[in-house]
Amino acid sequence: MPLLVMKFGGTSVATLDRIRRAAKRVGVEVAKGYDVIVIVSAMAGETNKLVGLVNETSPLFDAREYDSIVSSGENVTAGLMALTLQEMDVPARSWQGWQVPLRTTDTHAAARITEIPTDNINAKFAEGMQVAVVAGFQGIGPDGRVTTLGRGGSDTTAVAFAAAFGAERCDIYTDVDGVYTTDPRICDKARKLDKIAFEEMLELASLGAKVLQTRSVELAMRYNVKLRVLSSFEEQSDEAGTLVCDEEEIMELNVVSGVAYSRDEAKMTLISVADRPGIAAAIFGPLADAGVNVDMIVQNIAEEGRTDMTFSCPTDQVKRAEKAMMDAKSTGAINFNDIVADEGVAKISVVGIGMRSHAGVAAKMFKVLSDEGVNIKVITTSEIKISVLIDRKYMELAVQALHDAFELEKSA
Amino acid sequence: MPLLVMKFGGTSVATLDRIRRAAKRVGVEVAKGYDVIVIVSAMAGETNKLVGLVNETSPLFDAREYDSIVSSGENVTAGLMALTLQEMDVPARSWQGWQVPLRTTDTHAAARITEIPTDNINAKFAEGMQVAVVAGFQGIGPDGRVTTLGRGGSDTTAVAFAAAFGAERCDIYTDVDGVYTTDPRICDKARKLDKIAFEEMLELASLGAKVLQTRSVELAMRYNVKLRVLSSFEEQSDEAGTLVCDEEEIMELNVVSGVAYSRDEAKMTLISVADRPGIAAAIFGPLADAGVNVDMIVQNIAEEGRTDMTFSCPTDQVKRAEKAMMDAKSTGAINFNDIVADEGVAKISVVGIGMRSHAGVAAKMFKVLSDEGVNIKVITTSEIKISVLIDRKYMELAVQALHDAFELEKSA
Repeated sequence: MPLLVMKFGGTSVATLDRIRRAAKRVGVEVAKGYDVIVIVSAMAGETNKLVGLVNETSPLFDAREYDSIVSSGENVTAGLMALTLQEMDVPARSWQGWQVPLRTTDTHAAARITEIPTDNINAKFAEGMQVAVVAGFQGIGPDGRVTTLGRGGSDTTAVAFAAAFGAERCDIYTDVDGVYTTDPRICDKARKLDKIAFEEMLELASLGAKVLQTRSVELAMRYNVKLRVLSSFEEQSDEAGTLVCDEEEIMELNVVSGVAYSRDEAKMTLISVADRPGIAAAIFGPLADAGVNVDMIVQNIAEEGRTDMTFSCPTDQVKRAEKAMMDAKSTGAINFNDIVADEGVAKISVVGIGMRSHAGVAAKMFKVLSDEGVNIKVITTSEIKISVLIDRKYMELAVQALHDAFELEKSA
Repeated sequence: MPLLVMKFGGTSVATLDRIRRAAKRVGVEVAKGYDVIVIVSAMAGETNKLVGLVNETSPLFDAREYDSIVSSGENVTAGLMALTLQEMDVPARSWQGWQVPLRTTDTHAAARITEIPTDNINAKFAEGMQVAVVAGFQGIGPDGRVTTLGRGGSDTTAVAFAAAFGAERCDIYTDVDGVYTTDPRICDKARKLDKIAFEEMLELASLGAKVLQTRSVELAMRYNVKLRVLSSFEEQSDEAGTLVCDEEEIMELNVVSGVAYSRDEAKMTLISVADRPGIAAAIFGPLADAGVNVDMIVQNIAEEGRTDMTFSCPTDQVKRAEKAMMDAKSTGAINFNDIVADEGVAKISVVGIGMRSHAGVAAKMFKVLSDEGVNIKVITTSEIKISVLIDRKYMELAVQALHDAFELEKSA
């Protein structure tokens, strides 16, 4: 029997009515003859509520307890989805992550999938079950404790299941009808893309376009999983949404495909670090160990053996980063005069595979921002994207100006 | 190391402040040198919310999905309690039921505990952990799916852990400061008992006094677990609350110890059942299979080979009971003209070990109710209790009148 993976995000399962609507979409595919694995997120707001309880209880929480707590929301949705399908006379049952078992590393709160055995679920398909509903975002670590894959991890769960079970396609149902040139909520000229290359999607995802979790796109690229993003709020044809695929499948590549932004960025600076070989490792090793996702890194020119080291990370990891740095200082592993956090910044990026063969994109981006009076704090670039940190108050303005300047409202 | 089991009910962990207060109580026992197993319920309201979602999704739900959904509330509390203890520098971690693993039968939504291996948790105590926080109410069935023990099951979890680990005592922290002669909310003369016999507590619990789940008392009696009920909202001495113990430990037994009531009762009648040997089994077998907790049963005198069969069950099981009966009728297993449910009844009971040696308690009870104009619909008796079903609107009146008549406000 051909198999589909269908993933429904938090807004798509936010209420019992929406779960019913999602279940009907699943029913349509079952009626076509598919076995379906449904991956569900927690009902919208539930995970935030649980994370809030954890943070209020213990700001520097034990991530093993965090995982055990926040994974509960997905279990609720999985059970409700299975019940809803049963009410529609579709044979279905739920699986919690440890029941599959979806095995992961022991990096709690940011675990990576190591194995998805298919035998348990396939045995049930063989018995006549038509839909396996799996709680997304969660797994079981080597020590038998619950792990989670990081925020947005249900996308990664979905793609990993699609790869493990050899699914024909992995459909990600969300609250938008595809991938846009930028966020339509802050730029009304934003245009939906019919197709986007894995590499571009990867940059957009990692840059804060919240349609897909970065790792899910990496995984889809690695296993060549046909990935589709589409809305759970509209009637859908087989060609709806945005297909994320190999660049070979896209006729005309854009120089710039999209403008992404990330609101919850913090810029941290270690003032007057003693500069010596190995100092970067001495700083970023402890940060990685503390689970801080460092993004951009800038090192100033050293003077008299001292330098300033600036990096960015999500705002909710600032306390963790500060603690890691103070601990490293107290052991003498590093030495600095002060640590300064600026939690009022945002990251803006332009992304496009065509950049590889077109010069001048960076220069144009900087000029546009300059014309708008936006000061650039940090710059990083890759082959297919340019990112800058700016004051958060200019974020919307910068996105709109760049979208206009690169004429993204026009189809390629 | 001596070991205590401490159980905190939903109202005792309803907010993060209350969890902190409960954790402090645990800290007091740890400071005395105890290892502690803490059993937690879901935060007050959470389980009801989840049960509501299930019922709205699927009135005749698949109990396996129900269990997977409603057990999530306890997992959240267990993690939060472990984090709170860690913040107090008490080494603690949480366990979900399947992690212990607390093994149960496969009777989903009303599973019975079959085994609690102690090795996992004892290994952590040996490593220096001082508190194991265990999610109450849940376990794992033979098929590897999550099971629950029925409403109030966390009490049973607590007593079962106390028995399995040979705990010195099992303290049940709740929102009342002990066991009362009746519910103080409906009778202001209600008096706290310092001690109550297991048998009496068993009748009170099964009759709707919601302080302890019936099965927890059965289990405590069987394994002679020293069981104490006390308030989590007051500073507590070692002699606080009510001790549930062997009747030998109580000097002066009361004729009547308490008046219990149960509000959510329904009276169901099968009209004109074909009367034949085995008819009771043919009716109550399917009801048991459907998970209906039948309580009182009355069979009228048969006329012309037909009889009426009346039984009571919780109001939320009426649909289930009706379906089981209609199914049994459709297969020809039983035959009746009609099924009538009266969801407007309540059960009132008087309980006391002294009844064994004192006659006239039933006669007095019936006279008190008659004097108040309360009509009795069904009567059942045991060695140490007398129960009646009456119209729910007379419930408070009946309890108060009986409490007065048996002078329960006076100490024995």
